[in-house]
Amino acid sequence: MSETKVLLTEKEMPRAWYNILADMPNKPKPPLNPATKEPMVPQDLTPIFPLELIKQEASEERWIEIPDEVMEIYKLWRPSPLCRARRLEKALDTPAKIYYKYEGASPAGSHKLNTAVPQAYYNKKEGIKRLATETGAGQWGVALSQACNFFGMECTVYMVKVSYHQKPYRRSLMHVFGSEVIASPSDRTNSGREILKKDPESLGSLGIAISEAVEDAAGRDDTNYALGSVLNHVLLHQTVIGLEAREQLSKVDNYPDVVIACCGGGSNFGGATFPFAYDKIVKGAKVKLLAVEPSACPTLTRGRFGYDYGDVAGFTPLLSMYTLGTEFMPPGIHAGGLRYHGESPLVSQLVHDGIAEAVAYGQTAVFDSGVLFARCEGIVPAPESSHAIHAAVEEALAAREAGESRTILFNLSGHGLLDLPSYDAYMEGNLVDYPLPEENLKKALEKLPKI
Amino acid sequence: MSETKVLLTEKEMPRAWYNILADMPNKPKPPLNPATKEPMVPQDLTPIFPLELIKQEASEERWIEIPDEVMEIYKLWRPSPLCRARRLEKALDTPAKIYYKYEGASPAGSHKLNTAVPQAYYNKKEGIKRLATETGAGQWGVALSQACNFFGMECTVYMVKVSYHQKPYRRSLMHVFGSEVIASPSDRTNSGREILKKDPESLGSLGIAISEAVEDAAGRDDTNYALGSVLNHVLLHQTVIGLEAREQLSKVDNYPDVVIACCGGGSNFGGATFPFAYDKIVKGAKVKLLAVEPSACPTLTRGRFGYDYGDVAGFTPLLSMYTLGTEFMPPGIHAGGLRYHGESPLVSQLVHDGIAEAVAYGQTAVFDSGVLFARCEGIVPAPESSHAIHAAVEEALAAREAGESRTILFNLSGHGLLDLPSYDAYMEGNLVDYPLPEENLKKALEKLPKI
Repeated sequence: MSETKVLLTEKEMPRAWYNILADMPNKPKPPLNPATKEPMVPQDLTPIFPLELIKQEASEERWIEIPDEVMEIYKLWRPSPLCRARRLEKALDTPAKIYYKYEGASPAGSHKLNTAVPQAYYNKKEGIKRLATETGAGQWGVALSQACNFFGMECTVYMVKVSYHQKPYRRSLMHVFGSEVIASPSDRTNSGREILKKDPESLGSLGIAISEAVEDAAGRDDTNYALGSVLNHVLLHQTVIGLEAREQLSKVDNYPDVVIACCGGGSNFGGATFPFAYDKIVKGAKVKLLAVEPSACPTLTRGRFGYDYGDVAGFTPLLSMYTLGTEFMPPGIHAGGLRYHGESPLVSQLVHDGIAEAVAYGQTAVFDSGVLFARCEGIVPAPESSHAIHAAVEEALAAREAGESRTILFNLSGHGLLDLPSYDAYMEGNLVDYPLPEENLKKALEKLPKI
Repeated sequence: MSETKVLLTEKEMPRAWYNILADMPNKPKPPLNPATKEPMVPQDLTPIFPLELIKQEASEERWIEIPDEVMEIYKLWRPSPLCRARRLEKALDTPAKIYYKYEGASPAGSHKLNTAVPQAYYNKKEGIKRLATETGAGQWGVALSQACNFFGMECTVYMVKVSYHQKPYRRSLMHVFGSEVIASPSDRTNSGREILKKDPESLGSLGIAISEAVEDAAGRDDTNYALGSVLNHVLLHQTVIGLEAREQLSKVDNYPDVVIACCGGGSNFGGATFPFAYDKIVKGAKVKLLAVEPSACPTLTRGRFGYDYGDVAGFTPLLSMYTLGTEFMPPGIHAGGLRYHGESPLVSQLVHDGIAEAVAYGQTAVFDSGVLFARCEGIVPAPESSHAIHAAVEEALAAREAGESRTILFNLSGHGLLDLPSYDAYMEGNLVDYPLPEENLKKALEKLPKI
């Protein structure tokens, strides 16, 4: 019998994160100060971020060492397993080898903890006692709650109000780790009060919650803000995923023909693929890097490449990225983590330059593949991760069609144990593919900032 | 930096289960036919169990080989990690080394899958197409659903009605794996209808659900019954836990002074400790084997040693065990998996003979330690598993008191991600220690069968 999992020892863990800014043929245009529209300077960010993360955001060093204190916490769950999905291969009757890297084994249940831990660490080191953040479905809020808990820091999470009520288990999990969880919009901030004045029944949005968290952090000396995706330093921390996976595959004398990850703000995709993008850019490796997004929120496949704000209110820097426009309102798909109008500038640039590519799928096909995977491999995937699974299934079927034994690697970014109501909807036949709101998209794109 | 996890490769997995019946100085008295009160013969069990499991139930072979087909599925999550709880040690300021074996990494979220897989396999091999079982909180129902799914079998789970409504996520999980889940009491069986006739609003109980599942299985040729704890073959399959843990500890040149596991029906405790009991009985090893039970349902610490029925209706064989009496009604503690009046005959005999020992704790102390563990190590434990954690904490504090560097091993039988409402109750201060219903216990013990 051959092995199902490829393991690394803790001694074989990467000791540095990989910074793709060092190697990109075209680097993203710089972020712009939202007030002056001039390139940001570090001082613009010091009210809400620690110096070390501001430095990492702009660094062009190829390798950035992982601090010992972060390594110690990573070891609670890392290195994460790389698994051969033999039963899925058999079910698809494919000559392809399908491997998945499993990030759902983290105590937070997703890859988000990979960056939450160093973000909390650097803030703690610079004397910050409390972090404020926003969360939608709750994956990021859980991860930052755990990270703050590990370093003895306070954490306040502004949770989009509709999720606060719909995802009570993730809220409970944040409470277990000692966080304060506030339904957003709230009366704790000016921006929250402003919204509530207009609409006391507002269900909230990620854009509103970001505004509240940033305002909270900017207003208190002991508090900083933390973001779970999009920014360069966030993707940097996630590269432990791809670095480990590449090492694990090399242990079984293999290298992927395609690396697949779902893509919302881009941290999961960046983390899984950047080490392979290095091979492609620097060493000429032939590897397809595939970002998978929902057809209901198709940032990379239908968005425009240019400057846009990260939030609805326009408080954040202008970023150079693919965007659907801040006024685009994605339909209520179950993969809440992929409902974002923008995209990481790093990932956007790689797609723009043809180094990475993107594909979009509807959620019924995505759930079909998610349930197939669960029944073959046992793990119930998060709806976000099921996007990657569906693309892997499509690649495996294409390999069967072509009669070629390809190696497919995808990142299983999280488990779906706290998303089971979405599976109920699927099993009961109540899941639909929302059409893209074309008129809304057209209007949102027309309103993009002219820069 | 030293290692946090001790890993085994798949090649180092045990290839046989350890059967403690081979080595016990006193073997449990035989199960009795409930009708004749005579020792059971294999034919008594063939209507509901496959021959191979009936054989294992009575076997005195020390090692029973694990079939290749079971090994292949075990590899989806086994070998499970052995982790050093360094952050917990530090929080307790103890010289003790605390290790935990983590069974919550299984796709079912608990150790129950270790026996669900071979049970489904042997049934499938003997031509059975469908299994019927009962479940309380749902851990066992989820495990058997996954196992049946892996072997392409149907599965019907009679779920105690109050849990059916209170634990919707576990019910959803069973649906994802294709099981039929029926709230018990139901109108599907005579025993269910009987109860509903008397009390249409009955919330159900494990005893009623067992009766329904057994009746279902006995009534259909294509269907057998499966039990998740108590019986010898169930504990046999669970010994992979202790076998792996012993091998993992030997890799770091260590051996436990105490092995701790929570104990309801006994499969978790038996699985974790029997390989160490072998060392103790056969080789004279000095190791304390500690079963932890809730003070609200103290079978080993307050029960009587003798024959009793496994279910309320008296359909099951009479087993030689510690029991609180079938009429004992345990208070509604959150560790639903430990609310059972009886106990595995193997575990009961070992405790009776002084080879293993038992301790009981109230649930507030148990949750205190569960939350402490979560905040140190990241993993939110199942309320059942937190009983073991609390005992480990007590042992670690005793080591500090004594100034001794002891090695403590406990089994973390499952995660608590689907038990988060219990943590809400704890965090909100709504958790109480139920006093033992002494009068109810006294009456239940008086009604024990006179054999």
